[in-house]
Amino acid sequence: MSNKIRWGVLGGGGDSLIGVLHRVAASMFDAYQLTGAVFNPNHEASLKFASEIGIPTNRIYKDFDTMVAEELKLPSEERIQVFSVLTPNFLHFPMAKKLLESGFHVICEKPMTMTYEEALELETIQKKNNNLFALTHTYTGYPMVRQMKMMIANGEIGEIQKVDAQYYQGWINPIIHDSELRKTTWRLDPEKSGISCCMGDIGVHAYQMIEYMTGLEVKDILADLNHLYDDNQMDIDGTVLLRFNKPAKGVLRASQIATGEENNFSVAVYGKKAALKWEQENPNYLYLLEEGQPLRVLKPGHDYNSELSLDGTKLPPGHPEGIFDAMGNIYKGMAKAVRGEDYNPAEFPSMRDGVRGMHFIETAVGSHRDGNVWKSL
Amino acid sequence: MSNKIRWGVLGGGGDSLIGVLHRVAASMFDAYQLTGAVFNPNHEASLKFASEIGIPTNRIYKDFDTMVAEELKLPSEERIQVFSVLTPNFLHFPMAKKLLESGFHVICEKPMTMTYEEALELETIQKKNNNLFALTHTYTGYPMVRQMKMMIANGEIGEIQKVDAQYYQGWINPIIHDSELRKTTWRLDPEKSGISCCMGDIGVHAYQMIEYMTGLEVKDILADLNHLYDDNQMDIDGTVLLRFNKPAKGVLRASQIATGEENNFSVAVYGKKAALKWEQENPNYLYLLEEGQPLRVLKPGHDYNSELSLDGTKLPPGHPEGIFDAMGNIYKGMAKAVRGEDYNPAEFPSMRDGVRGMHFIETAVGSHRDGNVWKSL
Amino acid sequence: MSNKIRWGVLGGGGDSLIGVLHRVAASMFDAYQLTGAVFNPNHEASLKFASEIGIPTNRIYKDFDTMVAEELKLPSEERIQVFSVLTPNFLHFPMAKKLLESGFHVICEKPMTMTYEEALELETIQKKNNNLFALTHTYTGYPMVRQMKMMIANGEIGEIQKVDAQYYQGWINPIIHDSELRKTTWRLDPEKSGISCCMGDIGVHAYQMIEYMTGLEVKDILADLNHLYDDNQMDIDGTVLLRFNKPAKGVLRASQIATGEENNFSVAVYGKKAALKWEQENPNYLYLLEEGQPLRVLKPGHDYNSELSLDGTKLPPGHPEGIFDAMGNIYKGMAKAVRGEDYNPAEFPSMRDGVRGMHFIETAVGSHRDGNVWKSL
Amino acid sequence: MSNKIRWGVLGGGGDSLIGVLHRVAASMFDAYQLTGAVFNPNHEASLKFASEIGIPTNRIYKDFDTMVAEELKLPSEERIQVFSVLTPNFLHFPMAKKLLESGFHVICEKPMTMTYEEALELETIQKKNNNLFALTHTYTGYPMVRQMKMMIANGEIGEIQKVDAQYYQGWINPIIHDSELRKTTWRLDPEKSGISCCMGDIGVHAYQMIEYMTGLEVKDILADLNHLYDDNQMDIDGTVLLRFNKPAKGVLRASQIATGEENNFSVAVYGKKAALKWEQENPNYLYLLEEGQPLRVLKPGHDYNSELSLDGTKLPPGHPEGIFDAMGNIYKGMAKAVRGEDYNPAEFPSMRDGVRGMHFIETAVGSHRDGNVWKSL
Repeated sequence: MSNKIRWGVLGGGGDSLIGVLHRVAASMFDAYQLTGAVFNPNHEASLKFASEIGIPTNRIYKDFDTMVAEELKLPSEERIQVFSVLTPNFLHFPMAKKLLESGFHVICEKPMTMTYEEALELETIQKKNNNLFALTHTYTGYPMVRQMKMMIANGEIGEIQKVDAQYYQGWINPIIHDSELRKTTWRLDPEKSGISCCMGDIGVHAYQMIEYMTGLEVKDILADLNHLYDDNQMDIDGTVLLRFNKPAKGVLRASQIATGEENNFSVAVYGKKAALKWEQENPNYLYLLEEGQPLRVLKPGHDYNSELSLDGTKLPPGHPEGIFDAMGNIYKGMAKAVRGEDYNPAEFPSMRDGVRGMHFIETAVGSHRDGNVWKSL
Repeated sequence: MSNKIRWGVLGGGGDSLIGVLHRVAASMFDAYQLTGAVFNPNHEASLKFASEIGIPTNRIYKDFDTMVAEELKLPSEERIQVFSVLTPNFLHFPMAKKLLESGFHVICEKPMTMTYEEALELETIQKKNNNLFALTHTYTGYPMVRQMKMMIANGEIGEIQKVDAQYYQGWINPIIHDSELRKTTWRLDPEKSGISCCMGDIGVHAYQMIEYMTGLEVKDILADLNHLYDDNQMDIDGTVLLRFNKPAKGVLRASQIATGEENNFSVAVYGKKAALKWEQENPNYLYLLEEGQPLRVLKPGHDYNSELSLDGTKLPPGHPEGIFDAMGNIYKGMAKAVRGEDYNPAEFPSMRDGVRGMHFIETAVGSHRDGNVWKSL
Repeated sequence: MSNKIRWGVLGGGGDSLIGVLHRVAASMFDAYQLTGAVFNPNHEASLKFASEIGIPTNRIYKDFDTMVAEELKLPSEERIQVFSVLTPNFLHFPMAKKLLESGFHVICEKPMTMTYEEALELETIQKKNNNLFALTHTYTGYPMVRQMKMMIANGEIGEIQKVDAQYYQGWINPIIHDSELRKTTWRLDPEKSGISCCMGDIGVHAYQMIEYMTGLEVKDILADLNHLYDDNQMDIDGTVLLRFNKPAKGVLRASQIATGEENNFSVAVYGKKAALKWEQENPNYLYLLEEGQPLRVLKPGHDYNSELSLDGTKLPPGHPEGIFDAMGNIYKGMAKAVRGEDYNPAEFPSMRDGVRGMHFIETAVGSHRDGNVWKSL
Repeated sequence: MSNKIRWGVLGGGGDSLIGVLHRVAASMFDAYQLTGAVFNPNHEASLKFASEIGIPTNRIYKDFDTMVAEELKLPSEERIQVFSVLTPNFLHFPMAKKLLESGFHVICEKPMTMTYEEALELETIQKKNNNLFALTHTYTGYPMVRQMKMMIANGEIGEIQKVDAQYYQGWINPIIHDSELRKTTWRLDPEKSGISCCMGDIGVHAYQMIEYMTGLEVKDILADLNHLYDDNQMDIDGTVLLRFNKPAKGVLRASQIATGEENNFSVAVYGKKAALKWEQENPNYLYLLEEGQPLRVLKPGHDYNSELSLDGTKLPPGHPEGIFDAMGNIYKGMAKAVRGEDYNPAEFPSMRDGVRGMHFIETAVGSHRDGNVWKSL
C-alpha cells in the first residue's frame, strides 16, 4: 500500500536519545515506515514502547535472531529493507554482520565495531553481499558541512596546506576526578567501549570529518593522549599530528576534559587561495577567508550553495535547522540509495569511513603507547 | 490499534514548505498519526501526494466539506481528532470556523483570519464549543524563548521598563522596486493577504512574542508604516511605538525591505534588575544582562533552565535544534492538551493570541492611516 | 623649535576621563604640543596637575579669561592655536564663543551648547571669524564608520530606504529608581544638563551618526520619550521616528535604562542594493548584507577600504584599535586643517553637526511634550 | 622641570609602525618624555624625523655608541633613564647588552636576542647590573589577559588540566608560493631572523602567554614544523605538544600560512573547576565556562575585575580599548618600576620571559629537526 521503505530498528527504545534522533530523522522526508523492531532486550518493554509510540506490535520481535529469521521468511516485498543498529557499541559488529550476510541494508551508529579487525571483516562481508551501509557520522549531514566539502572539491580554496580540527567537550570532567566514578563509568571501561574513550568517541568524528571535507587521506599520525589518572585506562583527551597523502599537515585535538565545553567541534581548512571554517554548535554558518578580502559568511538555503548542500535544507534562509535535520539528510541519502535513485556518495558516510575510523583509533592509541611516535594508517 | 492522535491536514501538499514543517513537527514525539487530508483542491493531486508520502488514500477526501461530513459519520474513536489548517490565508477562517463548530480541535497557521471581526467570531465559536485551538506562532516553541518567558514571569529581571522587538527581512526588496512585480505579487494584494503585508506577516509575530514573553498587554500603539511606492497599497516596513498595561514603553520594528536580512527577529526586554535578549537566527542562546555583572549566556538542555524550556529540548547541550524542533514542541503541547494531560498554556499559542494579533494589525494600519496617532487595543 | 600645533586645554584635569582621552588623542600622531591650560577652576590644582603630567607650568593660567587675555598678548607664532573645551556642559558655549571671537580654533566636547539658540549664535560667530571648529562626536573617528560613510556615498548600497540606529545604555538604572538619587544627580538636573538627558547625551550621538553616515538630512521627527517617574524632569529613554529629505524612513532608539547594556550603539542602513551595519562595542567590524549573497565582514587596514578609512588605521589588520584611536583620528583631521593641509571634511564633526544636534534635541523634547507629534527640523 | 621619565628611543623612525606604537604607548599616561634618540642609522634622517614629530634635536645622536657615550657624560638627573630598543632584530642583543652594562633600563622589542646563548648572556648582565628590563610581549597588556592570569592564580578555575593556544596568520601565504619572493624576504632569511620564522615570530608569543597566564612552566615539547617547500629554510607553520611542571598537557599551534587569518591569537585554559578563553582580535571579552552553568562573558572596567586588570582600563565599560592601550599598560608598569613605585611583576614581561622564549624557539626547531621528538626546556 505504502511506497515507504520498510525500516527496522534495533535498540533505541525507552528514553533513548539516539532512538528519538533516528526516528525523527527517518520521518523527516516521508521515506521510511517503521515496520519492525527489537527496541529492548526485554520483549515486554519492546512491545510496550511500540505501543507508546504508536507502532503496530506484530513485528516487534523477542530478539534480534528471531527478527532476522522471521523477516527472512516474509516475501521480499514485505520484508524489512533496511535496519538501523542503535544498540550498545559491542553489538554493532555482530548485528551488522548478520544483517549484511542476510541481505539487509544497514544504517549503523558509531562506532561501527569494537576493533579494526572487525571493521575489516565487516567490509569484506559488505563487498561480498553488495548491500548498502551507512554509518551515522551525523555532522556530515549539515548543509554547510556539505557546502564546505563541495567548495574544497571544486578547488575554491586551492591546494590544501593546513588542516585543524577540534572536538572539545567537558562532560567527563565531573566523573574523572572521582576515583569511584571513573572505575564504574561504562565509557571508561575498555570491555564495554573499546580501547579508547576520547579518540574512540569524538576524535574519530573529527578524523572522519577531515577526510570527508578535504578529500585527503590521512597517511601518518603521532598522538599524545592524556589519561589524567594512572588508574584510568582510557584516553580522555589528546592531540594528534596529521600528515596526508598530499603535502599538507594537520592537527586534530579532542578532549572530554575541556571543562564547560558542550559539543565544540570545529574544523578549519587552509588552502593556497582561501580557507574555510565551520563550527558544529553554530552549524548554519560557513566562513570563507581570503587574503585581503572581506570575510564571507555563507548560510544554508541560498542559491550560491551547491546542489549537495541545498538538498539538505528544507526552509528558506534564516530558519535555523539543527542536528535532527542533519541526521534527516543522512536518512534521505540512504533512502535514495535503497530505492535505487541517483545519489551523491557524500550524502551518507559509508563502510569505508568506518574502517578508516577504527584504524585511526587503534593507531592513535598505538602511537601514544609507543612514546608518541609516527604510525602509518 | 495505535494510541496516536488521529490527525487531519488541510493544504500543505506538493512542495509546500509549511506542509513539511507541520508533518515533521507532528512526527517528532510519535504523538500524531496522519489519518486523513485534503492536501490540494485537486483531488487527483491530493491522492498522488498521499501516495508519495506513504499515507493511506482512503481518507484523502475530494474537498474540505466532504472531509468534514465523512469524518463526522465515523465513530468518535475513529474520527480525526485534530486538524491542521495550512491552506491559503483567506481559507483559515472559514475552515477553522466549520471545524470548531463540528467539534474538531484545530491547529491553525498564521494569520488566523483576514480581519479582526472574523477573529472575534472565531473566538466566540471556540468558547461555545469548547475545543482546543493552537495558532502556530512557531517561534514560541524554541526552548530559550520559553526560558525567557519563565524567567520574566519569575521576576528574575524585575519590573519591565523597556521592550524592543525587531523583525527584519529583505525578501520583498527584489519585488517592490519593480512596478509590474509589485502589482502581481499575492502578498501585496489586499484581496489575498488582508490589509497589511509587513505588520500582517511578521509584525504580528513580534507583537505576539512580546506579549508571550513579557506577560504584559499592549494597550496603545502608534504606527509609522512605509509603503515606499504610492501605487503599493500595502505596508512593507514600519515602526510601532508601544505602551503597556504597566508603566513600560516599547518599540516594535518590522521590515521586509531590510535588504539582505534573512529572518532577523529579535527581542530585548529590560527590567529593573536585569535584561534578557534573544535572536531567532541563533535561537539556542539567551543573553542575561545585569548591571555590573558578566553577561551570562544560557543554552538549552541545562538543568538551570525551567521545566517548560527543558520539555522542548531533546538532546544534551551542544546539539543545536532548530525551527522544526520549535514547531515540534508546539505540536507536543497540543498533543498533551488533546489527550487531556496536564500542560502549560505556554506550550502553544491560543485563540487569544490570534484575536489580539488581528486587532494589532488593524490598529497599526489605522494609526498610520490617521496620521501616526495613538490608538488603543 | 617644534613644529607641533600649540594646543591649549580647558578642563580635563585631575582624574577626568575625558582629559585622558583628549591628551592621548592629541599625542597620537605627534601633532600637538600641550602648551597651556586651565585644567581646573582652582589654580593650585591646575598647577599641581600640570606638574603631575609633566607640562611646563608657565602657561597654566588662573582662569579662562586670563588665559585668553595673556595668550592674545603673545606673538602669533607663540600663541596657542587651538583650544580643547572639556569643561562642564554649561561652559561649552561661553568658552567656545569667546575663543572663536578671539581668533582661536576650537575642539569642543559634546554637547556644543545648552540650547539651540546658543548653537545658532555660535555658528554665526564662527562664520564671521572663519575659525576651525571640531565637535568631538568621537565615534565618527572609527575607521569602519568612515568606511561605511564612504561606501554609502559611493552608492554601494544604492538609494537608502531604511535607517535604524540604537544607542542603549543601562548606567542610569541604579540611579533612577532611587528618589533621592534622581533628584541629586547632575545629569538629571535641567539647570546643569539642558532640557534632555537621554536624547541630549546619547540620542544626539545617534542622530549625528545617521546624518554623518548617510549624507541624508533628517527633516521631520516624532518622539516618544520616557521619564519613568513623574518627579523626574528628564527623558531617560526614547524612540524617535525619522523622515528624511529623501524618501526613506528611519527610527532612532536611545535608552539609559536598558539594564546591563554598556555602550551599545549601533547603526543599520538599508539601501536598494545592499545594507551596512556597524556596532560601537565591536568597532572593527563592518557588515555588508546583500540579497542572496554571503554576508561580508570588512575590517580596518585592508586595501579594500577607502582612503578616509585607511587614514585612521595605524597597524596592520588584526591589531584591534579602539576609542582612543578614534579620537586620535579626529585630532589628526583637525591638525591637518589647522596646518592648512588638505583634509576631508569627514575627518571631524563640525559646527553644523553641533547646530543640527541641538535642534534635534529640542525638537525631540517638543514632539514628545506636544503629544508625540511630527515636528520639522 | 618635568618629573617625566627621560626616555630614549633606538630605531622606530620614519614610517615605522613599531615606532608609532611605542610613542603612543609612552605618552598614554603622561609618564615619559622623549628626550633623545637615534631613530635611523642615517643621522640626517634621524634629525629630520625628530623635527617632524616635534622633538628637540639636541639629543638626536649620530649613532648608538655616541648616544651612550654622550648620555653617560650628563649628570644622572639629566641622563636618559630608559631606552626602548626598536631596531632590527639582530641589533636587539648588542644594544640591550651595552645599555644594561652602562646602567640604563631597557624596554626591548621581541625577539630579545637572536639565540638562546645570547639571551643567557643578557640575563647574566642584567642580574649583575640590576637594571630593569621589559620585553614587549604587547598582548600581556590587555586588561582581560591580566584578568585571566589573576583568576587562574586565584584558583578560580582549579588545577589546570589542559592548555590550548593558537596563533594563526596568513600573511606569508602570498610570499611562500613564489620561489623568488621566498628567497628574498628577510623574515625567511636565517641570517636576518634567526633560526625560526613562525615559532620565532609568533609561536613564542603564544608560548610566553601560556606561561604568563597559567603560571605553569613548560617542561617538555615535541614540535612538528612545516616549511612547505624544500628550498625554504624556515618554519612557517607548526604544532607543538606541551608538557608542564604540573600534570597538565597542552598544545600550541602557530601558522603564517593560515590563509586569510589576520592575527588570530587565542588561548584556552581548562581547569578542574572551570575554563577561561580569550582571543586577541576581540580582546575585550573573556569567556568563563563552567560545567552546567551559563557561559559568562567578562569585560574590562567592571568592579568584578582584579586590580591588575582594572589598572589597565582607562574608560568605563563599553568603550573598546585596543592594542595601543595594551602597550600603554606595559609602559605604565615599567614607569612605576623606573620610579621605584610599587608594581605587580605581571605588569610587564621580563628578562626571564625573553630567556625562556629563546629556549623555546631553539628547542622547538631541534625537536622537529630530530624527528619530532620530546625535548626538555
